[in-house]
Amino acid sequence: MSILVVGTVAFDSIETPYGKADHIVGGAATYISWAASYFTNDIRLCSVIGDDFPEHELVELRERGVSTEGLQVKQGEKSFYWAGRYHDDMNGRDTLVTDLNVLADFDPVLPESYKDAEYVMLGNLTPEVQMRVIEQMNKRPKLIVLDTMNFWMDVAMNSLKKVIGKVDVLTINDEEARQLSGVHSLVKAARIIRKMGPKYLIIKKGEHGALLFHNEDIFFAPALPLEEVFDPTGAGDTFAGGFIGYLAKTDDLSFESMKCAVIYGSLLASCTVEKFGLEKLKGLSTEELKARLEQFAAITRFEVPEKV
Amino acid sequence: MSILVVGTVAFDSIETPYGKADHIVGGAATYISWAASYFTNDIRLCSVIGDDFPEHELVELRERGVSTEGLQVKQGEKSFYWAGRYHDDMNGRDTLVTDLNVLADFDPVLPESYKDAEYVMLGNLTPEVQMRVIEQMNKRPKLIVLDTMNFWMDVAMNSLKKVIGKVDVLTINDEEARQLSGVHSLVKAARIIRKMGPKYLIIKKGEHGALLFHNEDIFFAPALPLEEVFDPTGAGDTFAGGFIGYLAKTDDLSFESMKCAVIYGSLLASCTVEKFGLEKLKGLSTEELKARLEQFAAITRFEVPEKV
Repeated sequence: MSILVVGTVAFDSIETPYGKADHIVGGAATYISWAASYFTNDIRLCSVIGDDFPEHELVELRERGVSTEGLQVKQGEKSFYWAGRYHDDMNGRDTLVTDLNVLADFDPVLPESYKDAEYVMLGNLTPEVQMRVIEQMNKRPKLIVLDTMNFWMDVAMNSLKKVIGKVDVLTINDEEARQLSGVHSLVKAARIIRKMGPKYLIIKKGEHGALLFHNEDIFFAPALPLEEVFDPTGAGDTFAGGFIGYLAKTDDLSFESMKCAVIYGSLLASCTVEKFGLEKLKGLSTEELKARLEQFAAITRFEVPEKV
Repeated sequence: MSILVVGTVAFDSIETPYGKADHIVGGAATYISWAASYFTNDIRLCSVIGDDFPEHELVELRERGVSTEGLQVKQGEKSFYWAGRYHDDMNGRDTLVTDLNVLADFDPVLPESYKDAEYVMLGNLTPEVQMRVIEQMNKRPKLIVLDTMNFWMDVAMNSLKKVIGKVDVLTINDEEARQLSGVHSLVKAARIIRKMGPKYLIIKKGEHGALLFHNEDIFFAPALPLEEVFDPTGAGDTFAGGFIGYLAKTDDLSFESMKCAVIYGSLLASCTVEKFGLEKLKGLSTEELKARLEQFAAITRFEVPEKV
């Protein structure tokens, strides 16, 4: 099945306790596309870049089955740029620079060939831009997944709630779930948020795993305990890409299939954080993915005897 | 199998966003004994109280199979008292009062009948007191589990490391594991801590679950997502009591059995936090425990198709 991916394609400068990476390729849609490309080769990328973006990165994406027909290139302008520094514990981070550049007046215009995509992944962006994408679709996609962040809850809650009302799956972190719902208990928060529209809610908790909520069902996927987290940038986007990639490949939207999609999303995210930027995500082998899947199974499997 | 339980038997005053409870019965050994009593009725309690401790609480414990022969009662003195206030997010808490009272010069003297206990649970206490208990055992117990906290790492690291070197299982939280090992990655921390002596390390992460480490094996038990956490006091002690209770009952120290023990510990802890103090833990039915066990299984089970 085809996936429409909307989000940033950008440059990042990242400092972590392990080192620095200057002006490397990043952006939500880049991570999403790379992650999803492990499952399908029919990905349609909608984003905007300046004329400073390296062509070979686009060639690599196209080789993975990512169409760049809907990727606007603004001559004489610069791509979106973010610089940040992670704290020693790798949980918090400070934003050092946010240069919107081409993103400032981004109007997502979908090529005709994008408008019938069955799966839609709306990466973190202005809620208005996310909404304009949904409005251009020829028919209701089978599944729309939306990622967002606390920033939009602070400055654009009304627009955000409107677009949340149009999607099937919302992915946010635990603090964002609390902010959006106004309650502390994640079980109660999930109930409140699902009433806003999404049938499924995924709460990402970073090193503490991810929770999937649907009706009264809950599934918990742990994060793979890692030797070292090198650079958390793009972990959430990688998760989203693996999640929707798995669903588009299987075209199975049962709760059991959603669970597997969460596992694959976590698995790919556990790879991304082990190196700077896209370095690790670009070169995964089938054997490596299989080995990680087995690790996931091993750390969660238990069998309680019938009678204790 | 018999379990020797050492720890505080005390009074707590607790404030949470949901209410206040004044001078209710608490203490690590109390929670541990109650939790373990769901698995075995051969529990030997070693602690100290003043003459202010209600006799009916001791009667209840004895009815659950808890021997109080090693419980010292100091006439004219007061029991240990702790008062604390939990923050709105229920993660942090401020200690308002710590009155050591009888605990100030507690010398744990084991009755002869305690000295051959097969399982030993050392609740959070001065490392020196924990060590004196181990030294009095007639023979090496099958399993010694030790719980401790950051306070002892701050003020008595040397004594703490000595007693840690004598035990089989150490239970601490994630921040304590980082403090004790000096590294951030929990995988690396576990390796360093296991070199200090314990073959098994359990890292408790509260609402984020618990990790069990043994050699290069890792097991992750989620925390049951709860509607509301009412009072987190005693959750870690309940976990420890359920953990050692399960092992003492099955007398099976394989890694598979340890996993089940972690699940039962988590399950009982999820009960404790739903009411103030011991209220919920005292009245659990077999049906309720069975239902929670099924919930645990349901939220973690997934089946990834052979071929994706």
